[in-house]
Amino acid sequence: MTTHIRVVGTGLIGASLGIALSRNGFRVSLTDPSPTAVRLARDLGAGELAADGSDAPELVVVAAPPDVAAEVILAELTRWPDAFVTDVASVKGAVVDAVRDAGGDLGRYVGSHPMAGGERSGAMAARGDLFDGRAWVIVPTSRSRPDAVDAVRDVAHAVGAAVSVMEAHEHDAAVAVVSHVPQVAASLVASRLRDLSDPAVGLAGQGLRDVTRIAASDPRLWTQILAGNAGAVRDVLRELRADLDEVITALDDLETTDGRGALEVVNRTIGNGNVGHARIPGKHGAAPTAYTTVVVVVPDRPGALGKLFTDMGEAGVNLEDLHLEHGLGQPFGLAEVSVVPGTAEHLRQALDERGWRVHD
Amino acid sequence: MTTHIRVVGTGLIGASLGIALSRNGFRVSLTDPSPTAVRLARDLGAGELAADGSDAPELVVVAAPPDVAAEVILAELTRWPDAFVTDVASVKGAVVDAVRDAGGDLGRYVGSHPMAGGERSGAMAARGDLFDGRAWVIVPTSRSRPDAVDAVRDVAHAVGAAVSVMEAHEHDAAVAVVSHVPQVAASLVASRLRDLSDPAVGLAGQGLRDVTRIAASDPRLWTQILAGNAGAVRDVLRELRADLDEVITALDDLETTDGRGALEVVNRTIGNGNVGHARIPGKHGAAPTAYTTVVVVVPDRPGALGKLFTDMGEAGVNLEDLHLEHGLGQPFGLAEVSVVPGTAEHLRQALDERGWRVHD
Repeated sequence: MTTHIRVVGTGLIGASLGIALSRNGFRVSLTDPSPTAVRLARDLGAGELAADGSDAPELVVVAAPPDVAAEVILAELTRWPDAFVTDVASVKGAVVDAVRDAGGDLGRYVGSHPMAGGERSGAMAARGDLFDGRAWVIVPTSRSRPDAVDAVRDVAHAVGAAVSVMEAHEHDAAVAVVSHVPQVAASLVASRLRDLSDPAVGLAGQGLRDVTRIAASDPRLWTQILAGNAGAVRDVLRELRADLDEVITALDDLETTDGRGALEVVNRTIGNGNVGHARIPGKHGAAPTAYTTVVVVVPDRPGALGKLFTDMGEAGVNLEDLHLEHGLGQPFGLAEVSVVPGTAEHLRQALDERGWRVHD
Repeated sequence: MTTHIRVVGTGLIGASLGIALSRNGFRVSLTDPSPTAVRLARDLGAGELAADGSDAPELVVVAAPPDVAAEVILAELTRWPDAFVTDVASVKGAVVDAVRDAGGDLGRYVGSHPMAGGERSGAMAARGDLFDGRAWVIVPTSRSRPDAVDAVRDVAHAVGAAVSVMEAHEHDAAVAVVSHVPQVAASLVASRLRDLSDPAVGLAGQGLRDVTRIAASDPRLWTQILAGNAGAVRDVLRELRADLDEVITALDDLETTDGRGALEVVNRTIGNGNVGHARIPGKHGAAPTAYTTVVVVVPDRPGALGKLFTDMGEAGVNLEDLHLEHGLGQPFGLAEVSVVPGTAEHLRQALDERGWRVHD
């Protein structure tokens, strides 16, 4: 069992990892180019400051920004010739290639990617449960030592993550589709709002809010992520552009000609989206479940939602998902409560009896 | 004051409008090509069946599918020579043009668009509060009679909607940006998931879920909506494609050359998304407020969320927004609670005292 972990880089991921590992009995030593950042992480309970003459760690976790990860990994491999080294960069192929090309020891280095963080950054946002229940991808190569892979797996398990093992190029292709391309799409849609008139922006509804929520993400971090996975993201964006071109041509045909075949294109575009959307796993990584939605009118005052969920709890019905919608200039909102289908009717009745306005 | 409203088409919008108007003392007569649909709407409390020899309505609301709206409007204008006529189609320019081109009376016809509904359809989904607090756009022309505009405004106000007045082309350009293009983008992103491997789809996180939520929308309805606003949607999609092309070229440069200037393009793309996102109005149509987010760990059992919101209510802190995130294979989730900044510290303390695990 690994006991001494060295964390290099004490931003959100590094500091959160330090907190989680320290809580689980690991000895964690911390280092960061910024003396302020590393002291802050220590004060948050992420571990001790790495001392100059300290003993060697069993595992080094490089939690540096993606664009310097390879360089730091190589330095750590050299500095600690008996330690395993991993990193947490959200792109993997480029990092593994750079380590290999520079002659780094691919027996002791095993890349990984905890799927956590994203919109926030910095140690101040750190929390010990950041990895709880998240996916943590490990990307061994043919040269990885099995005990190196095990050391990374132990750390991932210790902080509550669910480990999956993939090849680096598989990982990069997957995150291009499920994370990087959605970010680009959200940013491009939000970008269209920049020059819109106030009354026009005033027509925004929940659909726009959802599509563009991640458009608020940090440009600096995302530039590094997208640049680090440029090839895979480009390939998926090209596929998306091919579909987009088809839609634009179809809409243009509808506008300027009789539009023969155009409606089929538009219908297929939305239909294909239905098919893709249905593949997204549900809660807890389970197969997608068709939850039933119960819509409840909730007065906009302190405690009203609390009362609703207390009443739901008393009815013995568990909430699977929740979506809040606020009315425009109205003293209440709508709570869309998702529950397993068998419990919906019972819930409706129970809430109705308790005086709630309930809709299907 | 208008008293007798005739609703033509008893799907989600027509039936909901009937329910809301009936509750507010209006006399509503209902008609629909489907005898089953109109009887269902009546049974839901949307009004009475329109009788053959009945008296003339003061206002006719055409709630027919977008692609037949103009035809039905013209028929109603002819049938009731003293009545005002409006419609609820989500695209307006094409409808107004068709009515004008066919010689319909543009003094008595005033188009409108209640911004409600969308993902569900049919009378069974109808509810009397569907328009509560929603935007309702009225699009008069230069030939609209002021009393016709007032009649539509009275109905919108009666059902709790917030009226805005725009020209038809302004409305169509606005909904292209805030509603139609986000739908296309969500569908195109979700579409990429169709052929992804199970382990790859398993890496999906909350960002993907949000971006693609509306990708589950009805293809038939959306084909009509997009076709009805083809020109405006095409124009916005072309702008989006120009930006997308730039991103693809930049990523390709990064992959194949030294990528000079490419990082700036990627950075600007995400940055422009930040700017656009910041323009989306906050709760209640107010100016966007930078809420503070407090993250609370919530055990996954009945009543846990209820307890949380009860405790929030007791602390006197009102919930402005809520975002639930479920862990993968973990017995708890994270509730991201948005509150006005001044109350966050007090809330953290109050929740901490009551035994909650709270993060920034």
